[in-house]
Amino acid sequence: MPEPDKKAEPIILAIDAMGGDRGPEPVVAGAALALAARNDINVHFYGDRDELERLVADQPSLANAKIIHADGVVSMTDKPAQVLRRGRNTSMWSAIEAVKNGDAQAILSGGNTGALMAMSKLQLRMIEGVDRPAITALWPTPRGRSVVLDVGANVEANAEQLVQFSIMGEAFFRAMTGTEKPSVGLLNVGAEELKGRDVIKTAARILKEAGPEIAFSGFIEGNDISKGTVDVVVTDGFTGNVAIKTAEGAARLLGSWVKEALTGSLLAKIGALLMMGELKKLKARMDPSAANGGVFLGLNGTVVKSHGGADANGVAAAITMAANLAGHSYQEQISKTIARISERSIATLATPSNQSQNPENQSENIKAVV
Amino acid sequence: MPEPDKKAEPIILAIDAMGGDRGPEPVVAGAALALAARNDINVHFYGDRDELERLVADQPSLANAKIIHADGVVSMTDKPAQVLRRGRNTSMWSAIEAVKNGDAQAILSGGNTGALMAMSKLQLRMIEGVDRPAITALWPTPRGRSVVLDVGANVEANAEQLVQFSIMGEAFFRAMTGTEKPSVGLLNVGAEELKGRDVIKTAARILKEAGPEIAFSGFIEGNDISKGTVDVVVTDGFTGNVAIKTAEGAARLLGSWVKEALTGSLLAKIGALLMMGELKKLKARMDPSAANGGVFLGLNGTVVKSHGGADANGVAAAITMAANLAGHSYQEQISKTIARISERSIATLATPSNQSQNPENQSENIKAVV
Repeated sequence: MPEPDKKAEPIILAIDAMGGDRGPEPVVAGAALALAARNDINVHFYGDRDELERLVADQPSLANAKIIHADGVVSMTDKPAQVLRRGRNTSMWSAIEAVKNGDAQAILSGGNTGALMAMSKLQLRMIEGVDRPAITALWPTPRGRSVVLDVGANVEANAEQLVQFSIMGEAFFRAMTGTEKPSVGLLNVGAEELKGRDVIKTAARILKEAGPEIAFSGFIEGNDISKGTVDVVVTDGFTGNVAIKTAEGAARLLGSWVKEALTGSLLAKIGALLMMGELKKLKARMDPSAANGGVFLGLNGTVVKSHGGADANGVAAAITMAANLAGHSYQEQISKTIARISERSIATLATPSNQSQNPENQSENIKAVV
Repeated sequence: MPEPDKKAEPIILAIDAMGGDRGPEPVVAGAALALAARNDINVHFYGDRDELERLVADQPSLANAKIIHADGVVSMTDKPAQVLRRGRNTSMWSAIEAVKNGDAQAILSGGNTGALMAMSKLQLRMIEGVDRPAITALWPTPRGRSVVLDVGANVEANAEQLVQFSIMGEAFFRAMTGTEKPSVGLLNVGAEELKGRDVIKTAARILKEAGPEIAFSGFIEGNDISKGTVDVVVTDGFTGNVAIKTAEGAARLLGSWVKEALTGSLLAKIGALLMMGELKKLKARMDPSAANGGVFLGLNGTVVKSHGGADANGVAAAITMAANLAGHSYQEQISKTIARISERSIATLATPSNQSQNPENQSENIKAVV
């Protein structure tokens, strides 16, 4: 038991302060917000010393923040292969290196996603048993938050990889929320077992036979994501990316319609004034910055990608998530669960499914139709 | 030139009155609404004569409607293979047969999608040169409407099929709206040429080299759909189905939040009363029934799938769309354009792309990352 008088060591987060579309200002302001709210975190900023010292000086909550100078900056248009060869002097590289060396427990960057993934893979390496990394996204639901993965690390995924994403997402959700047994669903075009792509059906068989290890709920459809039908929505990076961007687009269109309704007439404007309190709550609910922070799962280390255009609130949300994850051993859980399940899944894959044994289903050549 | 005194022959629509989750009532009521608004349409209802006669009797706009009795009904749980063998006495089969025999110019059904597709393919046959049918969906945008396809006829699509969907969607959009050169975009995870799945990149090359035939805008992302960046959004049936259902789910969640804001306090309720007029407009905009009606493209005949749960307004919207399409020769356009483009696409496919010739890109093994 720790002595009550002795203060626990703070969680150290390495922050790539130069990433992001708006430069270091919202990054430093966001860190200041996050650290003002909790005193168990400290941040190390990587980037231009002069600029960062000036920004940090204004923020009382950043009194203990450290600044580590880095000359280079990864730009949004740099190709991952280029930065791997020539980017070792950048703030992004140095911040990741801090996690590799144990100087920080997590890294956060708002920079070039491809470069961040490439540098993180090279420096932190993949968790044993994981084929491919996956990127998470938080999704608001009536029950709180779900996590969707992969939202863009890979454009394809085979059945084994979908199973790995399920294990990774499940461990991540537990680390983030404390939920003992998060429910997992595979995104498909119908809830019936016969519908959908073969890789998804195979992944479902493996997850079903994985036993009590994973609380697998079966297939879910697109509309289930916002319903919060499951805690963890698993899909390939192409479909996940399309789903999240499509929902964002639809939300923006609806938001513009609501705004038009609130300002469409003098009476409506007066009405909007009367409901100001409720509209503020609505705005906060619709604010995408609360969901900021995509985690790169599958690596030996916690890497959080903040949205390039995130404001201070968005950065603060991502920093808080990084800190929540930093204390957890979810990487270890992922490695162990994958080892246990992959043994069983080899057996599952060796057994022909009922489906392909059933001639009625084989002749059913239009089963793909929804 | 037609003689001004001679009334043009009405467009005849064959309506499967027994499909749909709510039975024939909203179908008949929807037809009555549609026919009250325009006098160039007549409907032939297929289904239970007694029930339909009773429902039609109440509707003055259906004075000329014809009822053709059918004993059988395709249920929502019937398997397509079953109904192909045993479903020839159903209202669905008979209504499709009417189009095949030239007794009607389009068929509309709110029934089992898989059965409707299977029966339509068997009776109407595919357009020459088309590999696979595709299902359309209308999508609201600030500019009006876009069309998305495929939203569920196939769970996979190769490059040639995506090109065919582009041609089909383009002809459909022109028939529906009169737009001379609808713009076409391929749904991808990034607008850059290097990102995304190989089949999509190949389809893009073919469409680019198709020349002025198709107004191809390149890749679009999920958020572009609701922006109305292009008129025709092309994707495989898995991705399209996930996209549309995900957007519906997000819209429903946001709608529930807006409702909570409008009723969250006494002041808010008074405010909502003041903006009643604007809220009614907002409700109409968000009403999914205006977008009802998925068209099965690629068949020799116009088949419109109404949503199973559509109300009379939804059915009326789908009937109006079916009537608009019935007068057009878009099937012929599709067949001709596919023949012209497929010749060129064979040449395109035979030429290696720049991408695979470029060693810089080949070494770029993480280009999939967004």
